[in-house]
Amino acid sequence: MANIRDVARRAGVSISSVSNLLNHRAHQMSAETQLRIERAMDELHYRPQRMPPRTSGQPTIIGLLVPSIVNPSFSALAHQVDLSARAYRYRVLLGNSYRQEEEERAFITDMFAHGVRGIIVAASDIRQTHFVRCAEQGMRIVSYDNRFSGSMAADTRLVDSVSMDNVEAGRLAANHLIERGCRQIVFATEAALTLSRSNKIDGFLAALRSHQLPAYERVIEGNASSEYGDTEMFELGRALVSRILAMTPRPDGIVAINDALGIGLMTGLRAAGVRIPQQISIVGIDNISLAGFSEPGLTSVMPPLAAMAQLMVERLIKRINDPLLPPGEFLFPPTLIGRQSVKD
Amino acid sequence: MANIRDVARRAGVSISSVSNLLNHRAHQMSAETQLRIERAMDELHYRPQRMPPRTSGQPTIIGLLVPSIVNPSFSALAHQVDLSARAYRYRVLLGNSYRQEEEERAFITDMFAHGVRGIIVAASDIRQTHFVRCAEQGMRIVSYDNRFSGSMAADTRLVDSVSMDNVEAGRLAANHLIERGCRQIVFATEAALTLSRSNKIDGFLAALRSHQLPAYERVIEGNASSEYGDTEMFELGRALVSRILAMTPRPDGIVAINDALGIGLMTGLRAAGVRIPQQISIVGIDNISLAGFSEPGLTSVMPPLAAMAQLMVERLIKRINDPLLPPGEFLFPPTLIGRQSVKD
Repeated sequence: MANIRDVARRAGVSISSVSNLLNHRAHQMSAETQLRIERAMDELHYRPQRMPPRTSGQPTIIGLLVPSIVNPSFSALAHQVDLSARAYRYRVLLGNSYRQEEEERAFITDMFAHGVRGIIVAASDIRQTHFVRCAEQGMRIVSYDNRFSGSMAADTRLVDSVSMDNVEAGRLAANHLIERGCRQIVFATEAALTLSRSNKIDGFLAALRSHQLPAYERVIEGNASSEYGDTEMFELGRALVSRILAMTPRPDGIVAINDALGIGLMTGLRAAGVRIPQQISIVGIDNISLAGFSEPGLTSVMPPLAAMAQLMVERLIKRINDPLLPPGEFLFPPTLIGRQSVKD
Repeated sequence: MANIRDVARRAGVSISSVSNLLNHRAHQMSAETQLRIERAMDELHYRPQRMPPRTSGQPTIIGLLVPSIVNPSFSALAHQVDLSARAYRYRVLLGNSYRQEEEERAFITDMFAHGVRGIIVAASDIRQTHFVRCAEQGMRIVSYDNRFSGSMAADTRLVDSVSMDNVEAGRLAANHLIERGCRQIVFATEAALTLSRSNKIDGFLAALRSHQLPAYERVIEGNASSEYGDTEMFELGRALVSRILAMTPRPDGIVAINDALGIGLMTGLRAAGVRIPQQISIVGIDNISLAGFSEPGLTSVMPPLAAMAQLMVERLIKRINDPLLPPGEFLFPPTLIGRQSVKD
């Protein structure tokens, strides 16, 4: 069983730094240091009793707002958030926004009405007025996979953000295809204007450029329906097939912005007689469990979702208990999970 | 726009019957009649203002307890329940039981602590003591896909139950295979002891017997992990492949207890060189959206989930508003959705 000394050593900080973090005295600590300590605790399975004892026995509620719970990426998130919340005797109140601002506003209103003090939000743009006002009125918000602003000064932050390093995710996917010999690589995506999307594309294009590969008109995008459900991304993947096959020269490698889109692409390409991975290799992003059950299995870039969910819940509870604790930005490194959709 | 007269005509009842149902005077009405009226309203998109105006503007909470939200069958259920709840300005508090009695008990305790007055429960056995006591203490419960007792007298019912007709689902799947010429048909399933499972098997065997087909040792079962997550059923399907291929004579048709298991079976059979549907035809049950994205597309038996979710939410709200309204049993007929996994 690891102790606080082990955590400090692994994180490369003093024991008092770990203690400060555990006892809500981390105001002066950089987000990077906090994250390093959180990760060390996670890796060592160190589970301190660091929350103040709850004054009543009543479990408390946190809100979770996702585009749609039937989207497998978000049902996986909800699952991990629920597991983490339960460990602190919190319950999760679920909201689906279908990426409609009206639904987001209604969710916020209802959370205040129910006395909920903290919410985790997966939204297209966390900088919108309704979220800003919600935070100013005292709701603790953790933004999932959508940073409030990379450049904003720490003391003006209103919300925590917990994201996969999406620039690195795009780079990792592209580099894997390049290492396996692909030279005509495209990025297949929905046409949404999210920061996580542009970060992934930035990383993707940077990898292409650093290998002197063509990086002009390499982003193939299409419009999905606005429901953000479970089938739109598969269908969008299929719909992009004809455009990819019409390109000259034909792409030999594709990064899909998410696994569902990637699986739709694979299904459509195979139906068109394309052999995967022999003729076209594909890498997805998200590593939904379905990626292991497609034919062929989809190589994918994985966010450390359990660790991210745990940090999100902990940040909410800490900031509920300590109003002075400033929000932080936390970036988690992705990992590539190799399957059969990329040639050897 | 349909009116109450149209609903009465379609349901084959008087206008006053419809009015009684809308105004909480349906105590003497049979469950079948209530269901017929509900269905007619649904089919005609008749959306009456039948709930009494809420006394406060505060939205209210219903609980939803599922085995695991990452299981695609249950994320689809959660999605539909949320849509229906939102229409009545209710929010959904989510619980995952992982089929652990301890988690079910904790959920019930927390719902009482939060003042929640109604819950929708997908559980292995709704007749267990903790659910019975919960209902006796005044919590309104709707049991999803698990009837309290088919034979129990109406006036001793403690919970509503809303299910697909699982006997009919098993029969429909088997009959479809028989019609397409399959003669050596098996039922592939997990080894759980749920009523919905035994009902499906009953319908399946009845169909075999009525066609004088071999109905002895036709149920192939295996143990899934207890997590009831998103991958266990796929893995169980794959694991059953060797046992199916070892049977003499080899099966030419399989009914899978759910689509995830069916897709796992297809993947495993194809990997073993079996051509689907030419050598073995497969029918799943549930019609998860993924069924349309497997290779080949999985023919499946579909429950009318949206209508079922709407009725579940309405029953909870009605019984919260009218403590004298007795619980009912509601069975919804399934439909077969044909794709490419069954030979012509």
